[in-house]
Amino acid sequence: MKVLVINAGSSSLKYQLIDMDNEEMLAKGNCERIGQEVGSFSHKTSDGRGTKHDAPMKDHTEAFQLVTEALTNKEYGVIKNLSEIAAVGHRVAQGGAMFRKSLLVNDEVLKGIESLIPLAPLHNGPELQGILACQQVFGKNLPQCVVFDTSFHSTMPRKAYMYAIPYEYYEKYQIRRYGFHGTSHRYVSTHCAHLMHQPLEDIKMITCHIGNGSSIAAIRDGKVIDTTMGLTPLDGFMMGTRSGSLDPSIVTFIMEKEGLTPEQMDDILNKKSGMLGICGYSDDRDVTKAEIEGDPKAILAHEMLTYQIIKYIGAYTAAMGGLDCIVFTAGLGENQPHLRYSVCRGLKYLGVRIDGELNDQMVSGKEGKISAFDSHVPVYVINTNEELVIARDTKTIVEKLEYASTEDKTVVDLEDI
Amino acid sequence: MKVLVINAGSSSLKYQLIDMDNEEMLAKGNCERIGQEVGSFSHKTSDGRGTKHDAPMKDHTEAFQLVTEALTNKEYGVIKNLSEIAAVGHRVAQGGAMFRKSLLVNDEVLKGIESLIPLAPLHNGPELQGILACQQVFGKNLPQCVVFDTSFHSTMPRKAYMYAIPYEYYEKYQIRRYGFHGTSHRYVSTHCAHLMHQPLEDIKMITCHIGNGSSIAAIRDGKVIDTTMGLTPLDGFMMGTRSGSLDPSIVTFIMEKEGLTPEQMDDILNKKSGMLGICGYSDDRDVTKAEIEGDPKAILAHEMLTYQIIKYIGAYTAAMGGLDCIVFTAGLGENQPHLRYSVCRGLKYLGVRIDGELNDQMVSGKEGKISAFDSHVPVYVINTNEELVIARDTKTIVEKLEYASTEDKTVVDLEDI
Repeated sequence: MKVLVINAGSSSLKYQLIDMDNEEMLAKGNCERIGQEVGSFSHKTSDGRGTKHDAPMKDHTEAFQLVTEALTNKEYGVIKNLSEIAAVGHRVAQGGAMFRKSLLVNDEVLKGIESLIPLAPLHNGPELQGILACQQVFGKNLPQCVVFDTSFHSTMPRKAYMYAIPYEYYEKYQIRRYGFHGTSHRYVSTHCAHLMHQPLEDIKMITCHIGNGSSIAAIRDGKVIDTTMGLTPLDGFMMGTRSGSLDPSIVTFIMEKEGLTPEQMDDILNKKSGMLGICGYSDDRDVTKAEIEGDPKAILAHEMLTYQIIKYIGAYTAAMGGLDCIVFTAGLGENQPHLRYSVCRGLKYLGVRIDGELNDQMVSGKEGKISAFDSHVPVYVINTNEELVIARDTKTIVEKLEYASTEDKTVVDLEDI
Repeated sequence: MKVLVINAGSSSLKYQLIDMDNEEMLAKGNCERIGQEVGSFSHKTSDGRGTKHDAPMKDHTEAFQLVTEALTNKEYGVIKNLSEIAAVGHRVAQGGAMFRKSLLVNDEVLKGIESLIPLAPLHNGPELQGILACQQVFGKNLPQCVVFDTSFHSTMPRKAYMYAIPYEYYEKYQIRRYGFHGTSHRYVSTHCAHLMHQPLEDIKMITCHIGNGSSIAAIRDGKVIDTTMGLTPLDGFMMGTRSGSLDPSIVTFIMEKEGLTPEQMDDILNKKSGMLGICGYSDDRDVTKAEIEGDPKAILAHEMLTYQIIKYIGAYTAAMGGLDCIVFTAGLGENQPHLRYSVCRGLKYLGVRIDGELNDQMVSGKEGKISAFDSHVPVYVINTNEELVIARDTKTIVEKLEYASTEDKTVVDLEDI
């Protein structure tokens, strides 16, 4: 079964075609600058064929047409006919409190995603467009599924997800902690438990997704009990361009002093803060280069990042009442041995010991244990794969659907995954 | 040597007269609703005499006149003549980065306090008024000293006090973590080390000041390395009416939806959030009563508070690389055995064990150890005494001043305390 995985942004559309018989990625690509005068399209197959060219794309529907053309192209395609695609899986950022698992798309689900747009205008809007465009291009008969960034976090207890603001805002606007990167935290925690030959349910695990956007999750009894991102992906610790949690008075103070609107302020905190705000670089490779050259602000940026991660690991160890395993994943987590080393050096009090050589080796797609043999807490690097999780969920839903269409439809809960 | 300690608010003025020969409080009182039509004045001596009556007070100068009248009153006074007061010590909330220790008031210091008003308009303004009013009533010859809420926290490293927002805001507005309640954290940490018969420098200590306003500090090598309050006393964990740290997008989200100004938003986060926002009660006695009656929101409020404290203790244990002692102080810290118990039960992974009986006994002014004999980390309840610290600093400064006025004035750094 071949599943097409879609991650739609406001002006972009990323895709992967995955053969679920062996979980192999066949091709992936990206449509950029959709709706702008000159868009860009890139496509690459697992065996190295591909294309990259400018292409005007009026909307997501036109982008999807390019995708289907590329997938069936004689030179760099990977399927002969679109009918080989059994289903499409979409990433959706905000599932709110209503979507706690992956779902088959139907009108009710579309309405739900639409109703959550106010909570995640930059994400749910474009993602909904992506689903509708996909329906136009593939027709309504092709099963489409949605996998939410928030759903793995939906097990958080109230004490972790409620903010101490007037309760009416929770009732009126659903303001609470939702958490994001759930698909990634789910993938790496499951995969790590597999590598440890232990059920995830028996491991108190902290998963550190550290990339351009970053979040940490505390997983106990196989369930997320807390995570750093909150109502939005701005919460938590500092990221490439995001501030993380703040003294809320800082927000109102700067708005007052600088005469900023809420939207302008939000823009500064999301796009001009974090590493970029502190040292002028948002890409960690640039920060590292500047740090090596002795730039004091780059040094400070890394010190802050390391320190904030250490504090969250300490906080979540307390929240879980202990710690059995730490996982690093995503851009920095998978490729920044120095950051991992600095974080773990600050966790000696928990008995964490890193094997320097193993740690240095674990870059560029390698994964495995990086803790020393005598470490009380094993530490792993895992390469996250959100697309695979989306494809797996989609496959499971579609298989149930097929079962239901041949057997008794009433006995299967299509939503139950 | 008798020292008058002053804590001036925008419409209030609290005072204590302390005999520093034996560190005994002689009298204390409160002027309330200064500047309003009907003010209120209360005064009480340590041997139970006193007065409480309505009294219009146009400004802080008139309030001081009532204070001096009461202190020398034949019926409920404690001194015969104002000249018995050797010095006045003032609490000042915001010392910024410029004031790292207690100081003798001079024109330069007054200018400095004034320059910090933008950072703490609700505090530094009235406190400055208090000092000026005191000069008017007592004359300029009486030594006045200022003790800053922030100075004990001034040892924090940059990685702890910098926020990940554009660096220009740090340069332009001095936006950073300052921390508050420093005088309280300083008193209880010093006193606890004394009770432990160990130098504070050798103890990794976490001090939990939990009252209507709350903050936690991490103290290593005798110095604060991190604290929860930040640019303002709104930062950190939930309090009686304050939210604590938030996803900053929540601030802009609510402002946008409700059409609020920065000032209105700040008001909501400072006065209508925290325990009050969650369950409708800001006073913990009311929350406890409602909790016992089964009110689910009161239960939630206490669960959130406990959980947030546990997470900060975990985070600061990580920040210090270990933990040797926990101290509870202030309203709830001194008088809420159930909260202390709930917090410590969440710290079993650190080897914390509470002695239930000792914990229950430690209320209403009693202080001492509440951990069990086999607890790996001793836990103390200490009754904070910020006024005593202010009086002690004032005495030290005045003694140096006297030495300087009789000997060579050039050899003494009056500011050095």
